[in-house]
Amino acid sequence: MSVTAAKGFTAAGIAAGIKESGGPDLALVVNDGPRRAAAGVFTSNRVKAAPVLWSEQVLKGGEVTAVVLNSGGANACTGPQGFQDTHATAEKAAEVLDGHSAGEIAVASTGLIGLLLPMDKVLPGITAAAAALSEHGGEKAAIAIKTTDTVHKTAVAGGEGWTVGGMAKGAGMLAPGLATMLVVLTTDADVEAPALDTSLRAAVRTTFDRVDSDGCMSTNDTVLLLASGASGITPEQAEFDRAVQSVCADLARQLIGDAEGASKDIRIEVINAANEDDAVEVGRSIARNNLLKCAIHGEDPNWGRVLSAIGTTKAAFEPDRLNVAINDVQVCRNGSVGEDRGLVDMRYREVRITADLAAGSESAVIWANDLTAEYVHENSAYSS
Amino acid sequence: MSVTAAKGFTAAGIAAGIKESGGPDLALVVNDGPRRAAAGVFTSNRVKAAPVLWSEQVLKGGEVTAVVLNSGGANACTGPQGFQDTHATAEKAAEVLDGHSAGEIAVASTGLIGLLLPMDKVLPGITAAAAALSEHGGEKAAIAIKTTDTVHKTAVAGGEGWTVGGMAKGAGMLAPGLATMLVVLTTDADVEAPALDTSLRAAVRTTFDRVDSDGCMSTNDTVLLLASGASGITPEQAEFDRAVQSVCADLARQLIGDAEGASKDIRIEVINAANEDDAVEVGRSIARNNLLKCAIHGEDPNWGRVLSAIGTTKAAFEPDRLNVAINDVQVCRNGSVGEDRGLVDMRYREVRITADLAAGSESAVIWANDLTAEYVHENSAYSS
Repeated sequence: MSVTAAKGFTAAGIAAGIKESGGPDLALVVNDGPRRAAAGVFTSNRVKAAPVLWSEQVLKGGEVTAVVLNSGGANACTGPQGFQDTHATAEKAAEVLDGHSAGEIAVASTGLIGLLLPMDKVLPGITAAAAALSEHGGEKAAIAIKTTDTVHKTAVAGGEGWTVGGMAKGAGMLAPGLATMLVVLTTDADVEAPALDTSLRAAVRTTFDRVDSDGCMSTNDTVLLLASGASGITPEQAEFDRAVQSVCADLARQLIGDAEGASKDIRIEVINAANEDDAVEVGRSIARNNLLKCAIHGEDPNWGRVLSAIGTTKAAFEPDRLNVAINDVQVCRNGSVGEDRGLVDMRYREVRITADLAAGSESAVIWANDLTAEYVHENSAYSS
Repeated sequence: MSVTAAKGFTAAGIAAGIKESGGPDLALVVNDGPRRAAAGVFTSNRVKAAPVLWSEQVLKGGEVTAVVLNSGGANACTGPQGFQDTHATAEKAAEVLDGHSAGEIAVASTGLIGLLLPMDKVLPGITAAAAALSEHGGEKAAIAIKTTDTVHKTAVAGGEGWTVGGMAKGAGMLAPGLATMLVVLTTDADVEAPALDTSLRAAVRTTFDRVDSDGCMSTNDTVLLLASGASGITPEQAEFDRAVQSVCADLARQLIGDAEGASKDIRIEVINAANEDDAVEVGRSIARNNLLKCAIHGEDPNWGRVLSAIGTTKAAFEPDRLNVAINDVQVCRNGSVGEDRGLVDMRYREVRITADLAAGSESAVIWANDLTAEYVHENSAYSS
């Protein structure tokens, strides 16, 4: 149930030889129409990989015929040659998918920064992937975009007679403004590009953009939504929005659940904020506090570190009105000691922190991970 | 050569029984005059410990007779009772130091957040410390304020006939806007409070405020500068500023060198920035990038992560003009691959990263630490 769950799409995932391991590393997703509407959201990092710069231009046209994705190399910080390589990738895909222009081919890459892609592997790989395209190829495509992901990630939702499906990769560098995250969503609903864009941006804002595994933001983040119109059905916008939101939330949760080296998934809900921006700012500050992330790893309900993190923000609050619950135990009341912290059961992977700012009625949820020796190990050994 | 290096000061450090270990945990620093001018800088965290709230008020008067410092408890997030305890601490010190008012006694605490101090230990401890005051007590005072510090930290500077001395504690939670850092500086120079304030703020801005061990900011940070005037000499302000700056820089460097679990000290210099704020913003962003901190720990000169970090800032720069050197090897030129990263020798504790924004002529230096399994271990086991 991946990108081929929706009608009108074929996909493939193959081993092109980009990865030294010889594992699957190149995916192709093709929209066979009749419609080829598309929307995209990209990293807000100002240092953007070549495929991001390319695909941003492609998406301005609102039409995408195919997406070429590779793991094994990010093609980021690779200068003019890197951009030429992305261009050549799109040209090759256009060539093997008869009758299309490179300007309708999106490209996404993930892997090491600062290395040129082995184009002698990539270009033949595209030919091989095109030959392998299948209405059942969604799973293989999802597998081919993995880097340090331990599992591939797919999701599906929809309505009467129409479907939204998707795949995602991302394991480290998960942060606001997206992660080292490549996501392709497809739908057979008959929706035009502007409506896709509205729906995708709304969904990303409260899902992928609120996943903050390690505070780091990638150069390559890409989320695409392609519509084939093959169902012939145009859902109400609100219904369509809900389906896109559902698939994004599902995939975002899977990303957190598979973050590099993590042993805990931390759901941080900020409530009673003066406004949503305050709630998000406070949530992110808590999510990024290394001392708290260590404490959670140690199953220590250290609310003092939550307050320390809140105190660094500009959000509206009074220190002596703050309340914090950890796994539903109100360990901090009015900025001071609350219920016995010994009551907090932290044995399970999911940990819930609720920070009550007592300053209004807005709220936001940010997902984060703990900080572990395994995270340090993976990221001191893995050069990206 | 600690707080008693300057004439006119006595100090003591004793074991009052606040720490369960029974180690030294209470320090007293007394200014015997003739002048009792003082300046202070405190945490910018909006969640402030009781002693910070108290001492901020005391410092408004510009006069400090004595400072009571304790380790073994931060007295933060302790509500009205916590504030009363700080008040009682100051009252007790005023009582045992004949003829002074509590309004001239500064208080500083460090240790666990969210626990009340054992006042039945603290108050007798003040009496004992007063009895132990000595012109040679500076080292003992520096030892008594340690928490997870592995060594005590002191420094000294000065000019013809006058001296600035200081002590510091701080090992984790080192971040901008100060750290879990208690610092007391003393001088026998004859300097009035406004000049002390100018000098101290200028020094802190480019030393303690640019130490960013783990991105976390404490509730208790306090830096005090007391002047006794006992030398009878009033140095030129610029000369005095240099001495204060020198002692602060020395202590700040010691803090980074003893940060919890760190195996590397990272000197991040941002050059050719459009303005100093940009340089600091970029430096902090690099300093806080967990992926880069892990890479440095793994002795991996991962310049892609430096660029990723720069890309998250609002500073003026063009991605394709960025240059990065690690230990003087220009690994990134014009936003792309530069010299061979294999040339970078990272065996030593100090690692130098130079980020060239090619956008102006301003610069700043931020000090940080690497991220290690030991950091995770210390902070998942130590409840603060």
